[in-house]
Amino acid sequence: MLSQVYRSGFQAFRQRLLPGVQSTALSRSHRVQPSAIRHVRSWSNIPFITVPLSRTHGKSFAHRSELKHAKRIVVKLGSAVVTRGDECGLALGRLASIVEQVSVLQNQGREMMLVTSGAVAFGKQRLRHEILLSQSVRQALHSGQNQLKEMILVTNLDFHDEQKRRNLNGTLHELLRMNIVPIVNTNDAVVPPAEPNSDLQGVNVISVKDNDSLAARLAVEMKTDLLIVLSDVEGLFDSPPGSDDAKLIDIFYPGDQQSVTFGTKSRVGMGGMEAKVKAALWALQGGTSVVIANGTHPKVSGHVITDIVEGKKVGTFFSEVKPAGPTVEQQGEMARAGGRMLATLEPEQRAEIIHHLADLLTDQRDEILLANKKDLEEAEGRLAAPLLKRLSLSTSKLNSLAIGLRQIAASSQDSVGRVLRRTRIAKNLELEQVTVPIGVLLVIFESRPDCLPQVAALAIASGNGLLLKGGKEATHSNRILHLLAQEALSIHGVKEAIQLVNTREEVEDLCRLDKMIDLIIPRGSSQLVRDIQKAAKGIPVMGHSEGICHMYVDSEASVDKATRLVRDSKCEYPAACNALETLLIHRDLLRTPLFDQIIDMLRVEQVKIHAGPKFASYLTFSPSEVKSLRTEYGDLELCIEVVDSVQEAIDHIHKYGSSHTDVIVTENEKTAEFFLQHVDSACVFWNASTRFSDGYRFGLGAEVGISTSRIHARGPVGLEGLLTTKWLLRGQDHVVSDFSEHGSLKYLHENLPVPQRNTN
Amino acid sequence: MLSQVYRSGFQAFRQRLLPGVQSTALSRSHRVQPSAIRHVRSWSNIPFITVPLSRTHGKSFAHRSELKHAKRIVVKLGSAVVTRGDECGLALGRLASIVEQVSVLQNQGREMMLVTSGAVAFGKQRLRHEILLSQSVRQALHSGQNQLKEMILVTNLDFHDEQKRRNLNGTLHELLRMNIVPIVNTNDAVVPPAEPNSDLQGVNVISVKDNDSLAARLAVEMKTDLLIVLSDVEGLFDSPPGSDDAKLIDIFYPGDQQSVTFGTKSRVGMGGMEAKVKAALWALQGGTSVVIANGTHPKVSGHVITDIVEGKKVGTFFSEVKPAGPTVEQQGEMARAGGRMLATLEPEQRAEIIHHLADLLTDQRDEILLANKKDLEEAEGRLAAPLLKRLSLSTSKLNSLAIGLRQIAASSQDSVGRVLRRTRIAKNLELEQVTVPIGVLLVIFESRPDCLPQVAALAIASGNGLLLKGGKEATHSNRILHLLAQEALSIHGVKEAIQLVNTREEVEDLCRLDKMIDLIIPRGSSQLVRDIQKAAKGIPVMGHSEGICHMYVDSEASVDKATRLVRDSKCEYPAACNALETLLIHRDLLRTPLFDQIIDMLRVEQVKIHAGPKFASYLTFSPSEVKSLRTEYGDLELCIEVVDSVQEAIDHIHKYGSSHTDVIVTENEKTAEFFLQHVDSACVFWNASTRFSDGYRFGLGAEVGISTSRIHARGPVGLEGLLTTKWLLRGQDHVVSDFSEHGSLKYLHENLPVPQRNTN
Repeated sequence: MLSQVYRSGFQAFRQRLLPGVQSTALSRSHRVQPSAIRHVRSWSNIPFITVPLSRTHGKSFAHRSELKHAKRIVVKLGSAVVTRGDECGLALGRLASIVEQVSVLQNQGREMMLVTSGAVAFGKQRLRHEILLSQSVRQALHSGQNQLKEMILVTNLDFHDEQKRRNLNGTLHELLRMNIVPIVNTNDAVVPPAEPNSDLQGVNVISVKDNDSLAARLAVEMKTDLLIVLSDVEGLFDSPPGSDDAKLIDIFYPGDQQSVTFGTKSRVGMGGMEAKVKAALWALQGGTSVVIANGTHPKVSGHVITDIVEGKKVGTFFSEVKPAGPTVEQQGEMARAGGRMLATLEPEQRAEIIHHLADLLTDQRDEILLANKKDLEEAEGRLAAPLLKRLSLSTSKLNSLAIGLRQIAASSQDSVGRVLRRTRIAKNLELEQVTVPIGVLLVIFESRPDCLPQVAALAIASGNGLLLKGGKEATHSNRILHLLAQEALSIHGVKEAIQLVNTREEVEDLCRLDKMIDLIIPRGSSQLVRDIQKAAKGIPVMGHSEGICHMYVDSEASVDKATRLVRDSKCEYPAACNALETLLIHRDLLRTPLFDQIIDMLRVEQVKIHAGPKFASYLTFSPSEVKSLRTEYGDLELCIEVVDSVQEAIDHIHKYGSSHTDVIVTENEKTAEFFLQHVDSACVFWNASTRFSDGYRFGLGAEVGISTSRIHARGPVGLEGLLTTKWLLRGQDHVVSDFSEHGSLKYLHENLPVPQRNTN
Repeated sequence: MLSQVYRSGFQAFRQRLLPGVQSTALSRSHRVQPSAIRHVRSWSNIPFITVPLSRTHGKSFAHRSELKHAKRIVVKLGSAVVTRGDECGLALGRLASIVEQVSVLQNQGREMMLVTSGAVAFGKQRLRHEILLSQSVRQALHSGQNQLKEMILVTNLDFHDEQKRRNLNGTLHELLRMNIVPIVNTNDAVVPPAEPNSDLQGVNVISVKDNDSLAARLAVEMKTDLLIVLSDVEGLFDSPPGSDDAKLIDIFYPGDQQSVTFGTKSRVGMGGMEAKVKAALWALQGGTSVVIANGTHPKVSGHVITDIVEGKKVGTFFSEVKPAGPTVEQQGEMARAGGRMLATLEPEQRAEIIHHLADLLTDQRDEILLANKKDLEEAEGRLAAPLLKRLSLSTSKLNSLAIGLRQIAASSQDSVGRVLRRTRIAKNLELEQVTVPIGVLLVIFESRPDCLPQVAALAIASGNGLLLKGGKEATHSNRILHLLAQEALSIHGVKEAIQLVNTREEVEDLCRLDKMIDLIIPRGSSQLVRDIQKAAKGIPVMGHSEGICHMYVDSEASVDKATRLVRDSKCEYPAACNALETLLIHRDLLRTPLFDQIIDMLRVEQVKIHAGPKFASYLTFSPSEVKSLRTEYGDLELCIEVVDSVQEAIDHIHKYGSSHTDVIVTENEKTAEFFLQHVDSACVFWNASTRFSDGYRFGLGAEVGISTSRIHARGPVGLEGLLTTKWLLRGQDHVVSDFSEHGSLKYLHENLPVPQRNTN
């Protein structure tokens, strides 16, 4: 049963094995140079947050974000991870990518160990091949960084014998010291299965009965920081998976075990879950953090281990320390419930809350500015001047914030519950379409803390629940502003409708909560919007990632108007998304005073000109030629291109534009109307600056943002963008069979009058 | 330079290697038993379309969908695929997953060959290890199907020597015959680079100068059906990648090469592209189809080879045969351009087109029914009776279709160009928000061919471009119906606005065209909707995947009304998404005549009752207990649960419902209004059947579908769901700087009257 290697004892095994290893092994210090760490990237191209790895063992981690500090990590691979689902032998792809991930982590200066099970099928007769395989793997992983990775195969442990255990520990420590990744192979065949009715309470005593508890035991004995258990289950569920309420548990605390169903063994994939939990709790008591996760998903298995160490929400994280606040999932539920209550308040009550928040902003000015000062002090020297400016609050900023909030309160009166359509379907059967909140919004904003009260007021006005995720640099300011928002909400008992998400939560993880969040609104740079659009899984994102605005100066344009409009559109605030980026000039204007006047103005305003290919071909002198006609400069730079007709201008806009805002300058009304009708953009203007493309300037009251999406909301978005509709049908006992061919009733479908929108 | 193995000649090498191989090799027939094929699944859990593999070599494939018939396949792995991006040695994960994919294809009865390059770094001294590695891999892949996979390493080819070439061919053929996967390792170091200015025209003569042409040469010599070239480039671009117009070429024909830029060597990743194209064209001429694709993407490398063989749109497919019709990308562009023209027609013109299509449906009845008969004949015996019924058209079906179309024509008058909002921003500066089409719709429908004219009419009415993708079983019917739609469109010169996508195009591939398609509308089963929602990458999908409708019978409900409403909601058409699934009964009703009357009615209607846990606890007898409270039966089955109050009913609906349609039955108006306001569903009814939840019954005119999304459109969707808005601003020379704090102008923001919606 026991292999020859085991029979001869670990000491002997070690002696037999190590000489061969030592011949190629180089000793190295455990701490890698920080500069060396910084340039290590995981193979999956996910940048790795590199941190100095120094930590004393003894206490498990309290939060996933701390897992990146783990120095010694044991990765336990279940049989389902090691073998293929179709029972066609080893899962080579998975195994190799696990080896790569372990290698990446080892290269970061961590001490990695692998515990595998299920390899018994390969038996003793394959042992030689496997050792050779691992040597080949080792050579493949030789990274050229003067560090040597070694893998050693050890089979069949027995913790009962104290001497053998000490030998094993000694062997493993020495291997780690030599920067070798030990692979401990546990043999299922000689390990009796876990007792079927083992009591989860009794986790203090553990006997080595199964592979998971063996891994836990090894992890604790080796004073490991983190044990990662990979199998074919997702993690823990609070109800059996597949049931109505089943939810994956992100963090599991020992005290929670009473309230959790681990599933029955009859359910697929849940067999052995109790043993896993028991082992995890045992490891946790020994000071080793544990994550149980699925290691078999084709889409994630290539980065599951590095993801866990990076703190991503994969599987279930076992923690001894229960944080004071709620989890983000609980916050999502609170925002949903609070939002639903908010939605059923009277419009006046919602307006009252916003007015109260506006008052608090000025009344509590000193406290707010004190918190903001803390943020500024902590950011001093770490943030560039423009960012510091965005971070800082002032009395005047708070005053204008309060004014803005009162405007939102005013426009909120006419938002939720507005009747859009009324139809008499039949006698005493009336249909109404009314506006209702979307549900729960997630607003992600960068350094500006003044964003928080503004967004809070928009959510209140539209009756939506809100999850807020602000920048780390504004922690103190955001905290007090959120408290004030909740204070305002509590006057009508809906305090929980707005939740500030813990700064440690990763934006990427939030963007995956598609069951909790109905709409994501990023407020910040277009890079932020792009990142969020990429990260959002199945949740719509409202925003614009690009603003490539065009102005077409027609052959019949007025000289003075064109100059005035180009200057305002390009120079007034070039960083805005509604600033002009490409000027299209009708060919006939090229050698006219109009053209010279525009160019002179641009020179005076110090605008750098990029010539489009056609424009460049007309010039004897040539400014720098444009790299791409699809560029958002966001600065005092402008692309100029020549077109032959309004149709060519429209074609150019359709080809290179971003469907944001495009303008025609002409005195010919017919040409203007042709342009207005044919340009397929969110905003199309005639003889007006691109910069009017803005919710406030459009008179939408509260400005939610600008959307270049074609669905739901397009262009500048007011409160309406935060609303959807529902249909209310009031009948007596109406059934559709009465309206069938031979039924007694006929559909009337009379449109009934709808109350007109308030006019200011 | 040349390895020892090479120096001794292939014959000798073969003799030296084969005895060891033959000792374990079993001879087998090339054709695997069909039953064995059917159960082979790719490791990535993508079901593999298994087909009889019988084909004579000599002609390359005309379409990707034929690639699954490839019997002999050469996979060429570029250096970038074999080695890691961070220059840390071999890309083990990728290599292993490639081996797995090759093994899966080999197990399907194909003859696979691998050609690798870049392994020269490992050199002669590693050769022994690699052979051992490959032996270990081989044992891992032993599938237990009595087939033996073998991998053999051959290094350093030279095609110049006729004798050696013949030896190689002989060796490879013998290996293939033995069901062995040969790995041909080309040595970059001894192969001179491709000539920098090699002429793409001269593809008739090829010399073995680079690895790609070597692979092409080998593929042709071995009469291979398909050559897959994996490198770190995506495929071919019609312009250099990164440029404004860069587009990946899906299919490349030899005749196209004049119009295509392969990029310059200075551009990242494009070096050597000409050589690849040259090699591919050479292979094509030899009768071998070629796909050039990226094999380094972490997300796809695990299934890139099997995807290509399955016919998915990965990389660039080289084909000699240019199909008659346009590509789907060209169709997308035609639909966009045609749709834009359609949108600028007068509403009367769009209505005219629809009327003409309605006329054609009855005028061309005989031709339509003839085509439909062909479909029915081909489907006979292959489709179940209900599906055949859905597939079949009749004179009466066509007549009612024509009536429906005329209704759509009527409602189209008031859709595009409707003014929703008018604002005077300042003197002579007026803003208008008008409805415009969304852009290009992709409608995917299953067997019903009557869907086509209906959807076409909806697209025409809303001014949208349309891509139609119908079921294969309705090919003939769809073709003629599409021709009629185009005939109708051509009366106003917009024939190309509606495109029927080739039946060979995969739905999954269409769902990825996010640059071409603005909205996807699946029309069919909820499974279809779910599949499409999953497949759509970055394109919104309109539809409902679930309809779990509730009816809450309040303690103050009328007996007769409740029975009537339950019967209509559950029994009238139980398969509909708006049919009742869960009946919530107030506890007070349990032992009353009302309850008995409902139960009696359900018995008479033969509805199978499932008891919710609370309901079951009240019963002495117990019907089958519900498996999940979140079930859409779609049949004569009903879940009954007991609640204590209207609030508990609402909580139940929020927890287990799908936000589709939920009803309260009560005589108490206050309770009813509470329910209507608090239930967060698309449709909330009082004393009316769930079945009213329908665009036609709501009087929306044309029915687009029912949406359970919270964004854009919710509940039954009429033509409005196919529209978005744009903002038109008409000024004189208005600039925003005039409205600044010290400017001369002030915003007026006067709401101007809007023309009211037509009432019938």
